[in-house]
Amino acid sequence: MIQKLSSQDSGFTDALTELLSMPEADEAEVRRIVADILANVRREGDAELVALTNRLDRRTVDSVADLCISNERLKKAYESVDPLVVDALQESVNRVRTYHEQQLAALGGGADWQFEDDFGNRLGQKVGAMQRVGLYAPGGKAAYPSTVIMTAVPAKVAGVEELVLCVPMPEGEVNEVLLAAAYLCDVDHVFGIGGAQAIAAMAYGTESVPAVDKIVGPGNVFVATAKEMVFGTVGIDMIAGPSEVVIVADDTADVECVILDMFAQAEHDEMAQSILISASASLIEEVERRLPEMLEQEARKQIISTSLRDRGALIHVGNLDEALGVVNRIAPEHLQLAIDDPSSCLDQVRWAGAIFLGVNTAEVVGDYTAGPSHVLPTSGTARFGSPLGVYDFQIRTSLIECSREGSIRLNRGAAILADEEGLSAHAGSARARIKG
Amino acid sequence: MIQKLSSQDSGFTDALTELLSMPEADEAEVRRIVADILANVRREGDAELVALTNRLDRRTVDSVADLCISNERLKKAYESVDPLVVDALQESVNRVRTYHEQQLAALGGGADWQFEDDFGNRLGQKVGAMQRVGLYAPGGKAAYPSTVIMTAVPAKVAGVEELVLCVPMPEGEVNEVLLAAAYLCDVDHVFGIGGAQAIAAMAYGTESVPAVDKIVGPGNVFVATAKEMVFGTVGIDMIAGPSEVVIVADDTADVECVILDMFAQAEHDEMAQSILISASASLIEEVERRLPEMLEQEARKQIISTSLRDRGALIHVGNLDEALGVVNRIAPEHLQLAIDDPSSCLDQVRWAGAIFLGVNTAEVVGDYTAGPSHVLPTSGTARFGSPLGVYDFQIRTSLIECSREGSIRLNRGAAILADEEGLSAHAGSARARIKG
Repeated sequence: MIQKLSSQDSGFTDALTELLSMPEADEAEVRRIVADILANVRREGDAELVALTNRLDRRTVDSVADLCISNERLKKAYESVDPLVVDALQESVNRVRTYHEQQLAALGGGADWQFEDDFGNRLGQKVGAMQRVGLYAPGGKAAYPSTVIMTAVPAKVAGVEELVLCVPMPEGEVNEVLLAAAYLCDVDHVFGIGGAQAIAAMAYGTESVPAVDKIVGPGNVFVATAKEMVFGTVGIDMIAGPSEVVIVADDTADVECVILDMFAQAEHDEMAQSILISASASLIEEVERRLPEMLEQEARKQIISTSLRDRGALIHVGNLDEALGVVNRIAPEHLQLAIDDPSSCLDQVRWAGAIFLGVNTAEVVGDYTAGPSHVLPTSGTARFGSPLGVYDFQIRTSLIECSREGSIRLNRGAAILADEEGLSAHAGSARARIKG
Repeated sequence: MIQKLSSQDSGFTDALTELLSMPEADEAEVRRIVADILANVRREGDAELVALTNRLDRRTVDSVADLCISNERLKKAYESVDPLVVDALQESVNRVRTYHEQQLAALGGGADWQFEDDFGNRLGQKVGAMQRVGLYAPGGKAAYPSTVIMTAVPAKVAGVEELVLCVPMPEGEVNEVLLAAAYLCDVDHVFGIGGAQAIAAMAYGTESVPAVDKIVGPGNVFVATAKEMVFGTVGIDMIAGPSEVVIVADDTADVECVILDMFAQAEHDEMAQSILISASASLIEEVERRLPEMLEQEARKQIISTSLRDRGALIHVGNLDEALGVVNRIAPEHLQLAIDDPSSCLDQVRWAGAIFLGVNTAEVVGDYTAGPSHVLPTSGTARFGSPLGVYDFQIRTSLIECSREGSIRLNRGAAILADEEGLSAHAGSARARIKG
């Protein structure tokens, strides 16, 4: 039902590597399809967007105007949604906003900065926000309203002026809660367009869809490949892999909660990964014992059992230090420290997308209501990636203003180094200022 | 010799678009070659690295040990370089360090931050630096010691523990000044390896080359393509296009300096772009008149004249506002404001990699000695990209720690939203905490 490993086993390192490995996708065919879609939408604009959407999402619309979801329509959705759900959405929006306001403040408030050197030269940086950002959110049957909140709010807090949201509407189906979330987040333009064609429209712009500066948000393999391929024309966030959780637990953890948290991760899809690490043999034993019966209660037990079987693991280690060593080998997207005094080992955690401290903190609050964005680095990319945040929407410009004296001083060194690089016009430009 | 445009011309917008357009590279063949190199180095490690380097760089080494440039060798280079050049390198290192220390301070010093909400939940972010970063610097005849400084120093200031530098050594040729720069920047490992094979080695690691978390620095089309293709396995900086400068000048600018600054940009390569924008017809006329005779004095006049002919322009506009409108259309890598009172129009400049303010400030100081990194967003990518800086080497982790009361509060909303998304195990995990 789920693999058991022990750090004492001689083959443990190899087994861990195997557990974390993912099948290499054969991307050539996907790239070919996506390249065609990108080129066609770029060349034909709205007409191609309509043709592709009618074909791929089984629609019968006449123009992109029919795919545009007006603000009135968003408001109607908002008004039609159960007030309890609206409250939960509003709480999420408020908390995500507060968190990112604090984040912006910790980054110097997004303010310009400068200093003056000993020669009267002024140096610094102008800090601003992107003008227009595109959000992609999965739609149809697996629509995630929370993704709209977790991408739109950090962008707005950073100061982005205009947000464009694309969400697929297969067979015309749209999730009202997602539209309500877009309403609450003040998204400026919403289109019922999905797939690589949505990415193409936002990257290149069409007659109806405004071109954006950056595209963020998760999608299927066509969306992810399209994002990779338009990178350079626009900015993109990380390419998201399957979601993962690592739970480090000791005997203070509640077994039922540990199992439910593993299920929550595993239910995303068959490739999602749930790993429990513990120095407590009795905890692992208890998890193993109770897991099958609890699984029977789960609506998505088919997905959960496949995910746990193929990608899950219970790892027994000698002590907490060893557990954290395994965590650092994984660099997980989500790390739950369901242990006593979790703060004391924070310094030892080198890489993780988000850390959930203590037995009271379930990963699921991070998905919805805690405040940080749930868009996090997956598949070990926490080694170089960070949670989506206001910094992903900031743009910076270096500022250099030389005084007369300072110019002479800086150009002397510049001329010498330009000579060494064989760039004689650079040296000439520098020397003209020294003698000038 | 160089194209003249006027914003008054009816076809101006189209002409500007044409000026900024670049031929679409046929990337399929390059991708195929690079994919092979990546796969082979990943599989065969050192052996393949030696074979490729011997073949592509015309070397005859036996092992990667022969390609490793020891710290003693760096020190020897440092001691052999002209003291005047060493002083210029040291000045550059010091100034780049000071600038990035100020930048780090403006970002909250890279410190962790947190706050507590009304329910006793603690939320924040852990801020750290990447462990190991790979630098790529062009080598051989067009070696750029400054690139080592402009990538290594921001990484070190951010707190990166270990730096790996790869620089091609065609026919075994190596630039002593570049090695001296690596010595001054405390680069930890230096290899005389170039091309896609260097990127592969740093991305995947081999027996001798340590795997890094992120790769930065400019290279040729094979290097750029390899960086694109390993993105996800490691982080990368921007894919750099040809270098560009836009000079906005008024009658206070020195004509000779303006021309030399255009030459400095144009001498990089035939695709480099130099654009002058002015409301002064007499300035443009004077530039046009003096340019040919000054070009005759330039050692790299062949490259400069091709670049100016194919990619350069003198643009006459009605006034400064119009000039800045054109600047924002371009979103240039380098912007020189060779005008009176340049600060007064900073707010109007929406996008640029770096701005050089006033007639005393030549772009060339930004290449070497001013302080900001010369690795800047090119080809309009300043709309979403920023200068290379300490933020490119920081990693962040969300922190969430719930109190007992706070957990109940956050899980209520989480359960409601999970239900709406059809994620019943998420809802179950949340509800276990409410009743628990």
